[in-house]
Amino acid sequence: MINTIEWIGNELGQLKLLDQTKLPLETKFLTCLDSEDVWHAIRRLAVRGAPAIGVAAAYGVCLAAQKEKGDPDAVRQACSFLATSRPTAVNLFWALDRMHKRLEQIIKAGDEGRMVENLLAEARAIHDEDRQQCAAMGRHGADLLADLVSGSGILTHCNTGALATGGEGTALAVIFELQRRGKNPKVYADETRPLLQGARLTMWELMQAGIDATLICDSMAAHVMQQQLVSAVIVGSDRIAANGDAANKIGTYGVAVLAKHHGIPFYVAAPSTTFDLSLVSGKEIPIEQRSAEEVTQGFGKQTAPDDADVLNPAFDVTPAELIAGIITEHGVVAPVTTENVAKTVNR
Amino acid sequence: MINTIEWIGNELGQLKLLDQTKLPLETKFLTCLDSEDVWHAIRRLAVRGAPAIGVAAAYGVCLAAQKEKGDPDAVRQACSFLATSRPTAVNLFWALDRMHKRLEQIIKAGDEGRMVENLLAEARAIHDEDRQQCAAMGRHGADLLADLVSGSGILTHCNTGALATGGEGTALAVIFELQRRGKNPKVYADETRPLLQGARLTMWELMQAGIDATLICDSMAAHVMQQQLVSAVIVGSDRIAANGDAANKIGTYGVAVLAKHHGIPFYVAAPSTTFDLSLVSGKEIPIEQRSAEEVTQGFGKQTAPDDADVLNPAFDVTPAELIAGIITEHGVVAPVTTENVAKTVNR
Repeated sequence: MINTIEWIGNELGQLKLLDQTKLPLETKFLTCLDSEDVWHAIRRLAVRGAPAIGVAAAYGVCLAAQKEKGDPDAVRQACSFLATSRPTAVNLFWALDRMHKRLEQIIKAGDEGRMVENLLAEARAIHDEDRQQCAAMGRHGADLLADLVSGSGILTHCNTGALATGGEGTALAVIFELQRRGKNPKVYADETRPLLQGARLTMWELMQAGIDATLICDSMAAHVMQQQLVSAVIVGSDRIAANGDAANKIGTYGVAVLAKHHGIPFYVAAPSTTFDLSLVSGKEIPIEQRSAEEVTQGFGKQTAPDDADVLNPAFDVTPAELIAGIITEHGVVAPVTTENVAKTVNR
Repeated sequence: MINTIEWIGNELGQLKLLDQTKLPLETKFLTCLDSEDVWHAIRRLAVRGAPAIGVAAAYGVCLAAQKEKGDPDAVRQACSFLATSRPTAVNLFWALDRMHKRLEQIIKAGDEGRMVENLLAEARAIHDEDRQQCAAMGRHGADLLADLVSGSGILTHCNTGALATGGEGTALAVIFELQRRGKNPKVYADETRPLLQGARLTMWELMQAGIDATLICDSMAAHVMQQQLVSAVIVGSDRIAANGDAANKIGTYGVAVLAKHHGIPFYVAAPSTTFDLSLVSGKEIPIEQRSAEEVTQGFGKQTAPDDADVLNPAFDVTPAELIAGIITEHGVVAPVTTENVAKTVNR
């Protein structure tokens, strides 16, 4: 498994990130020396995936503490600054909040002399817990799908593997675990326009793991379901409201509607850190709007007329009623209700 | 309106085709001198859209007659050869069948001396009838949508305008007519992966006509419907079975399912030449499979790992029960039943 996010050194360290914008053609790494570097890496999607963003941001706080020689105000500012890198994934805010709390504890304990060491321990804990959560989601998801016939088709959207998390992934962790259990899943990967995370990243991860993977355009998902090639859909999420409505990469909601129409169960895999219980429903989740060029210059070549009007929402919201179950590290939320969400997340 | 297909000269003529693979960045024309040139132009999608393919193929037969100095066997061969250029659009076979019948009439009448002149008259008639059919579809469609509030959103998929026909289009003819009637439609154009006919061609045509057009990725259609931005969907078709099941560009079926889920009427606009009453249902429509490179090498840039498995069906089939009405040059088939299809098409 490739190291998507790696802290190099100890207190005087650097953050090494796999530059995912270069995949699958180049395996290049970035070195981040301060929180600005991390902010840009998140903003331009060099590192992406809700859990991975959280882990990277936590290390970004360590870089700020290191650079500013433990000045508490500068570290607090870095927390606020890093939170502006992207608006939808709640894991980012959760990780920064946790780092900020640790900072205040350090100050309260008069332990500023060892601030970087202490913050780094916290970031490493976040990273390590994420790894364990991925493994647990893999197990719970594979248990849930235990009745799948070997060789069944599973459709996924965007990228939710080791590249998107500190561990093996969310939805892809389930697929990796199914593979280990001898289920030989046949995965259909939506290419995931506009940024093609499915084509570039998911196909790369699945092929590296020796999993039977077939790339389709997003517009082919309905046809593949109509041809009865898909037995289940599993996707990740960037933020889940208290009622189970789940924001995820644009196109996910459409896949959920298609799955419903074809009687195919649609599952979301996400750690408890992806839930935002302060939001009653998905209507309150802010949706990031990105630049027109991601759509019109997508392939290194202009594909639409000059000055074409473009909509480019990065996410959409799938209502809970379309979700058969949410696979978390604590178990599966099913049916997806406010009550069941609270029970699982507050465990 | 641009001349997508134009016969230059008289009996000793050439076929001038707009090379649609270069749009929207370049407006380049191809000159076809024989049926092989036309075959390649159709195969590589320089000319595309079911009605336009039929018209181009009819002129291709004239080029063969001209080159082979009216040798009947060579013209018959050209008809068979041109039919192998693409498998799904029935207008191609319909036009070639009509040219072949005219050829046999010419021979029966002992008029071989004026074969090219006669065949050219037939091809021009096909072209001209297509123009009139487009105009009629525009009127019937606009009548059907007369209750739309001004500024309503209409979603379309792929390209169905002047570039796809001998006239103003099928689905786009309806939109052009709505614009002329002061309805100011706000069109959402799916980019239509893999070949981006929506981004490259539909956006170009709509913007040239001064219509309010917004480009979205195919994966955004569901979100746009969820946001209540769409009041109707109109698409074209490449072949419609006797029961009204309609084959169209891959992704159309998904849009139809999404429209159903959101309670939005989904219309198909197609001339009677697109119906294939020899097929009981859409299950019998052959679906063209195209090369993996169209998906993985989008626009001269590789977007998936080497050797990735890819599915690339060029079309899908929307079952009649998802279609609120089929807009033809003879009027609207609604509800879409075998009986109503027969009534309209056999008029």
